[in-house]
Amino acid sequence: MQMTELIAKKRDGGVLTAEEIAFMIEGYVNGAIPDYQMSAMCMAILFRGMDDDEILQLTMSMMHSGETLDLSPIRGVKADKHSTGGVGDKTSLVLCPMVAACGVKIAKMSGRGLGHTGGTIDKLESFPGFVTGLSEERFFENVNRVGIAIAGQTAEVCPADKKLYALRDVTGTVPSIPLIVSSIMSKKLAAGADVIVLDVKCGSGAFMKTPAQARELAEGLTRVGKLAGKRCAAVITDMDEPLGYAVGNALEVREAIDVLAGRTEAGELLNLCLTLGACMLTGSGLAADECEARERLAATIADGSALKKLADMVEAQYGDSRAVYDPSLLPAAPVTLEVPSAQSGYVSHIEAEDVGLVSMHLGGGRATKESAIDLSVGVVLRKKVGDRVEAGESLAVIHASDEKKAAEAAELLRGCYTLSPAPVEKAPFIKNIVR
Amino acid sequence: MQMTELIAKKRDGGVLTAEEIAFMIEGYVNGAIPDYQMSAMCMAILFRGMDDDEILQLTMSMMHSGETLDLSPIRGVKADKHSTGGVGDKTSLVLCPMVAACGVKIAKMSGRGLGHTGGTIDKLESFPGFVTGLSEERFFENVNRVGIAIAGQTAEVCPADKKLYALRDVTGTVPSIPLIVSSIMSKKLAAGADVIVLDVKCGSGAFMKTPAQARELAEGLTRVGKLAGKRCAAVITDMDEPLGYAVGNALEVREAIDVLAGRTEAGELLNLCLTLGACMLTGSGLAADECEARERLAATIADGSALKKLADMVEAQYGDSRAVYDPSLLPAAPVTLEVPSAQSGYVSHIEAEDVGLVSMHLGGGRATKESAIDLSVGVVLRKKVGDRVEAGESLAVIHASDEKKAAEAAELLRGCYTLSPAPVEKAPFIKNIVR
Repeated sequence: MQMTELIAKKRDGGVLTAEEIAFMIEGYVNGAIPDYQMSAMCMAILFRGMDDDEILQLTMSMMHSGETLDLSPIRGVKADKHSTGGVGDKTSLVLCPMVAACGVKIAKMSGRGLGHTGGTIDKLESFPGFVTGLSEERFFENVNRVGIAIAGQTAEVCPADKKLYALRDVTGTVPSIPLIVSSIMSKKLAAGADVIVLDVKCGSGAFMKTPAQARELAEGLTRVGKLAGKRCAAVITDMDEPLGYAVGNALEVREAIDVLAGRTEAGELLNLCLTLGACMLTGSGLAADECEARERLAATIADGSALKKLADMVEAQYGDSRAVYDPSLLPAAPVTLEVPSAQSGYVSHIEAEDVGLVSMHLGGGRATKESAIDLSVGVVLRKKVGDRVEAGESLAVIHASDEKKAAEAAELLRGCYTLSPAPVEKAPFIKNIVR
Repeated sequence: MQMTELIAKKRDGGVLTAEEIAFMIEGYVNGAIPDYQMSAMCMAILFRGMDDDEILQLTMSMMHSGETLDLSPIRGVKADKHSTGGVGDKTSLVLCPMVAACGVKIAKMSGRGLGHTGGTIDKLESFPGFVTGLSEERFFENVNRVGIAIAGQTAEVCPADKKLYALRDVTGTVPSIPLIVSSIMSKKLAAGADVIVLDVKCGSGAFMKTPAQARELAEGLTRVGKLAGKRCAAVITDMDEPLGYAVGNALEVREAIDVLAGRTEAGELLNLCLTLGACMLTGSGLAADECEARERLAATIADGSALKKLADMVEAQYGDSRAVYDPSLLPAAPVTLEVPSAQSGYVSHIEAEDVGLVSMHLGGGRATKESAIDLSVGVVLRKKVGDRVEAGESLAVIHASDEKKAAEAAELLRGCYTLSPAPVEKAPFIKNIVR
């Protein structure tokens, strides 16, 4: 078998066999197939697509390129969640404790953030003492005892995906549905859960710009998940502005705690967590239908069990769980600065990616894998799309390490807002559920 | 400027600017742009195509990546010819002396053969003592004095094309018209002639399998040539069987001499040379129309001036010109073997590429750039498409270095022939002329 022939086959619209895909991925990981052939193949796949069977084979080959997690030591149904990445996305921090409080086991391996979107692991480190590097034994023990653990990846999961993604990133081959699906699902399948829910972001701040693209991706993800024997659902949500209000590690933890404590009015973040959580509960067989699932999930907030679940997890991972009940113990930035609006009007758009870059500029994100991050800094939005704002009224608060950075960030943040003279009708936040 | 952005632009159907194309080619040649980005770009170009301006810019950038020949020391109109490569293609050996005998200056830099198609330079070395490595000064002097010189490339012509072609060859990105056109035309433009004629082969033995593909390539080549200020024409010819009868270096020289000496009946080889030559003569302004051009060219055979031109060239390049008048002085293989047909019928097809491989198997072609070749060996076909053959009648003669190789080659050669019980109508040899 020759890689040149496989490239030509895909280029001409052919369907690659399981053997051909395995040959390609194994060869790429062991160095027999060079980057320049793989990038040409990725571009051919981008133009020609792949059928479901090819995507499944690609996913499985990538999964088998590294270690996979066997969750059988954990009793009960294990669920996992993945987001395609958004700014201000603290969903896991709210969702996982709620679902765990309902009895679904959450054994979540999570990555660190890179660029303008933060990682759940980074956010959790806002709890003083919190340890993300758990041994596999301790990880399983925690899930069995507390019902939930969120740890950093220790095993070498999907090296094929790591190598391939780095290549795609510099060869214009990222936006290919088959390649995105196999990249996401190889890692999710390697993580071993029985139920997988996917949060597919859609809009100017997301990778999928249009509902049609997001739908195609959501369908691809769930199809492959089901073909691999998992219960799988995807929720397509709006990312035309950041999710919720806070962008920045400790600030997002604080917002998550506020939601779990029932201190915020029902907003998009809670709505998303109820929707994703309902998919997890019904998928796990712990609720008969969505209605029952949403009621049970809402009850975990009303009765404080979700907040307690978060506290238990933090404690089991050596963190200071008092911060769950007293967020003033979380890292706080020394400088805060309001960002007054120059004009009056209605917020018509908030460029999510740029808000993420403001937070990164403040020190809250990683430019490279090795960068240290400042957990305390970030942005808390006061106005969101659809809101009325008067000239001089604050659009947001900057949390910064010094005044110079705060002033620079305020200037940048103002540029993230677009105001309209006429009232703005907001697009529905949850666009679709694909099961 | 970032290569990743340029790849994305082309991937999304954009048009690359002259600056972007120059950046890409310069960066690729100096190593700033890695192979894996270039191969992804080539695949994107393969799917998206390029407009005439992009192809011209790509051609010019590749041409400027290396040395270019300034033919101004040569008086008169300079013409050059290129073939897309075929088996048994000894066209230059016949065409160039004919055209030079009419007063067009032929200053031809030619490559060596690789794989199953032979190079003109290799064939010319069949003349004992013939030197292909001329200094630029001597090369110009010969053309001014004799009217014709065919030498091996000395200058580093189009290093961008060398590097890019090697990459395309292993990444499934060879069959892209814009990439083929820029590869051919960058080298032709670097060679400095005023008039360029192109022999575009079409059929099972050629790279372009269908007349539509060949036409697209021919049109692309001539458009770019004209945009670059050259007089340019392309002739599309059949390659569903080898051209002429001989395949193998000295054997092809012998066939060329036979045509120039008027010893063979008018066949496809002569027809092709008259057609290409007419394009050269009219393009050079040395004939008013095709009819006059063909008459003048035919006269060079009748009056012996074409054969004399070949002899003059061989002599000027230190070769034994007596071989032009006495081909028995050319290298001859010790063993000849007739290949009798197993059945009776009409020849419906001769797989040209496989005939080339038979010649290579006999030692007449290069497997790698460093291989030595046996100039004497090869195949002379006795039957061509459309011919009637009786069982036991000879299809071809093998010229080999020993009897074992001859027997093996005979077996292989028999497999190149397809016979049909019914008479076969031959497709027209010259399919189209694109000006």
